[in-house]
Amino acid sequence: MNLISKQPNTGTTIFTVMSKLASEHEALNLSQGFPNFDCSPKLTELVNHYLKKGMNQYAPMAGIQSLREIIAQKVSDLYQVNYHPDSEVTVVSGATEALYAAITAIVHQGDEVILLEPCYDSYTPAITLNGGIPVYVTLTPENEYKIDWSIVKSKITEKTKLIILNTPHNPTGTVLSEEDLNRLSDILKDTNIFLISDEVYEHIIFDGLSHWSLLRNPVLKERSFICGSFGKTFHVTGWKVGYCLAPKQLSEEFRKVHQWLTFSTVTPIQYALADFLQEPENYLSIPQFYQEKRDKFLTCIQDSRFTFTPAKGSFFQCVNYEKITQENDYDLAIRLTKEIGVASIPVSVFYHQKNDFKILRFCFAKDDETLERAGEKLSKL
Amino acid sequence: MNLISKQPNTGTTIFTVMSKLASEHEALNLSQGFPNFDCSPKLTELVNHYLKKGMNQYAPMAGIQSLREIIAQKVSDLYQVNYHPDSEVTVVSGATEALYAAITAIVHQGDEVILLEPCYDSYTPAITLNGGIPVYVTLTPENEYKIDWSIVKSKITEKTKLIILNTPHNPTGTVLSEEDLNRLSDILKDTNIFLISDEVYEHIIFDGLSHWSLLRNPVLKERSFICGSFGKTFHVTGWKVGYCLAPKQLSEEFRKVHQWLTFSTVTPIQYALADFLQEPENYLSIPQFYQEKRDKFLTCIQDSRFTFTPAKGSFFQCVNYEKITQENDYDLAIRLTKEIGVASIPVSVFYHQKNDFKILRFCFAKDDETLERAGEKLSKL
Ligand SMILES: Cc1ncc(COP(=O)(O)O)c(C=O)c1O
Ligand SMILES: Cc1ncc(COP(=O)(O)O)c(C=O)c1O
Repeated sequence: MNLISKQPNTGTTIFTVMSKLASEHEALNLSQGFPNFDCSPKLTELVNHYLKKGMNQYAPMAGIQSLREIIAQKVSDLYQVNYHPDSEVTVVSGATEALYAAITAIVHQGDEVILLEPCYDSYTPAITLNGGIPVYVTLTPENEYKIDWSIVKSKITEKTKLIILNTPHNPTGTVLSEEDLNRLSDILKDTNIFLISDEVYEHIIFDGLSHWSLLRNPVLKERSFICGSFGKTFHVTGWKVGYCLAPKQLSEEFRKVHQWLTFSTVTPIQYALADFLQEPENYLSIPQFYQEKRDKFLTCIQDSRFTFTPAKGSFFQCVNYEKITQENDYDLAIRLTKEIGVASIPVSVFYHQKNDFKILRFCFAKDDETLERAGEKLSKL
Repeated sequence: MNLISKQPNTGTTIFTVMSKLASEHEALNLSQGFPNFDCSPKLTELVNHYLKKGMNQYAPMAGIQSLREIIAQKVSDLYQVNYHPDSEVTVVSGATEALYAAITAIVHQGDEVILLEPCYDSYTPAITLNGGIPVYVTLTPENEYKIDWSIVKSKITEKTKLIILNTPHNPTGTVLSEEDLNRLSDILKDTNIFLISDEVYEHIIFDGLSHWSLLRNPVLKERSFICGSFGKTFHVTGWKVGYCLAPKQLSEEFRKVHQWLTFSTVTPIQYALADFLQEPENYLSIPQFYQEKRDKFLTCIQDSRFTFTPAKGSFFQCVNYEKITQENDYDLAIRLTKEIGVASIPVSVFYHQKNDFKILRFCFAKDDETLERAGEKLSKL
C-alpha cells in the first residue's frame, strides 16, 4: 500500500525523544511538562466515589452540567465576565483537543493564521491539516520574547482568519499584560479576525502578577476561544480533561467539531472535578505552590554559569548557556542528558525554522530533591 | 463577529434530542446506545488502585505499553494475526477519535470515500471536514441491509481513497461474513484503496456467529485501520478509551494525527483496562450476556405488531412498524416517547437523504425490568 503522508516532516516529538533518552541514561527528567508529584488525595477519592456510584456512561456531549456551571462561576468570580454554562462552556479531552477543535471550526482552506513563535507544537499541524497557512511572528530571547504588536499588525492580510496566543507562555514563561490586550484589541476591533488563547497555565503565575486572560477585554472576548486544562492546574496531566470558553455562536461551531473528534469526555473525572472546583482554595493555592518551585530551582542554579530572567508564569524556566558552550541547543540537550544526567528541551524546536538561539527549557514541576540534584549537576558546568 | 460555518447543516444530534425528550416525559430510554447497568466492580476497583498509586500523569502518546501488548495478544489469540504493540497498536480517546484520526490521516482534499448507509453519524462530517467527498451505497430494509458488492465496485473511481465498514453494524444489527470479506478483497486487491473498519461491537455478536474482523483477510488487513472501543465491551461508554490497529506505515500516519487531536488518553483507566484484559473471560462472556438481552427484548415484543429480523450483533434491534402506522419514523419516534413513554431512534437519520423506510431502532442494553416494561407498552400499539 502506498500512503501519501499529509505530514511528511513530522517525526517523533522531541518530548518522546528526550524522555526516552532520560530513562535510558537514568537522567533527572526536567524535559517533558508534567509533575513528578501526585495530585491531592481528595481528588482521587472523588473520582473513586463517582466510579463506585456508577457514573460510567457517556457524559453529555458538551460536558456535565455541574462542571460547566462551576467553570462559568469560577471565571465570573475571578474576572467578572459571563459565559453561559449551557451554550458557552464546553468540556473536552484536554486543551490539545480544545485547540484542534477550535482551529478546525475556524480555519477554511487557504486561511492564514498568525502564530507567535516559539510556540506549542500542536498549533502548526492543526492549522495545516485543516488547509490553513501559518504565518509566523518570531519572538527572540535578546528581546525577552516581548511582542512587538506593530509587527503582528504588519502580518495581517485579507486572508488572516485567526491569531493564536498563549499566556502564561510555554516555553518562555512570559505573560501578557493589560497593555498587550489593549494593543491587540486596537488592532482587531474593526476586523473579523478570531483568536484562540491557550491559557492552560492560568493558575501558574508568579510575583503577584494578575493573569490577563483575553476574556478580560471585551473586544477580544467576543472573538476568542479560551482553552484551559485541569491537567496542569491540579497535577493530573494524565486525565486529559480541558475546556473551551467562547461566545455562543463560536461555541456552537466548536461543539459541532468536538462531537466528531471525541464526542464526550471521561464521565467520573468530570464529576470529581466539578466537586473539587467548589473549593476555590484548590486553585488559588497554585501560584504560591509553583512560585516556591520556581524559586527553589533558581536558587539551585544561581551559582551556575547559566543566565536567565525568572519565569513569570508556567512551570518552565528558560536559561541561556552561552557562557558555557557554543554548541547548538539540540546537541547540548542530548549531551547533558547523557553526560551529566539532566534532561531538558532545546527551545529551537518551538520554532518552525532552524535558529541559533542558545536556550534550554527546564520543567520545574518536580519535587525539591530532584530540583536540588539537578541544580548541583548543572552548577558544575 | 461573522463566523462562516463549515458545518451549516449540523444541528443538535437526534441522540441528544431523544434523550432530552425521554427525560422530559419520563420515558424508558431505549434511544441512545449505552447500558443502564454498571460495569464490573473489579474494573472500577482497578481504576481506583491506579489512581491511588499515582498513575495520573501523561501516558505515552501511543498508549501505555502493557495495554498495547495485551490488545495485540488478544487479537493474536482470537484471530491468529499479528500486530506489533510498539508500532501497530495505538490507544486513543474512544473509537470516535480513532475514526476521526484515521480519516484525517488518509483523506486529502477531493478524495472520495465510499460509505454504506445507514451508518454512524460521525463518518460523513469527519470526511467533509477533511475535504473529502462521501459517496453513498444505500442498504435497504427490504433487502435486510445485505451488501451488493457489485454496487460497491461500481462506485469506485480514480478518486476513491477509502471505504468505511462497520461490523457488527449500528443501527441494523447485521454482521459481515467471511464471504463478504472475500468479495471485498477481490475488488480491492489490485487497488490502492484503504479501509476503516469500525468494530466497536466486536464482542456483541450472537447465535454462535464468528466475528469476521477485516483483519482476518490478509488483503484487507494490509490496508485497514481497525477501530475498537472498550466502552462498548465493558459497559463503560463514559470512559472513552478506544484503539486502532493498523500496519506500521498506516499506524505511523495515524499517530501523527492522534498526537495533535488529544495527544494521549486517560492514564489510570489505561492501566486498569490492561489488567482487566488479562482475564479473557471478561470479554468472552459478553456475547452470551447480550444475547440474553436481545432474546429478552424480542420475547417482550413478540406479541406486538412490530416485525423484525433478530439482530445478529450490536446492542440494537431494528423493527418495522408498517402494520401499526404509516407515519414517518421521525414523527413516530417523537410520538412514542411522548405518548407511550418509550424512546427510540428513527433509522432514517442514519441516511444522508430523506427516505421513507419505516424502521425504528431500540437499544436493548438495558436491565430486564426496563426491557419488560418497554415490551408491554410497545405491544399495546
Ligand atoms: C501551551 C500548552 N498548551 C496545551 C497543552 C496541552 O494540554 P492538555 O494536556 O490539557 O491537552 C500543553 C501541555 O504541555 C501546553 O504546554
Ligand atoms: C458504530 C459506532 N462506532 C463508534 C462509536 C463510538 O465509540 P466510542 O464511544 O468509543 O467513541 C459508536 C457509539 O455508539 C458506534 O455505535
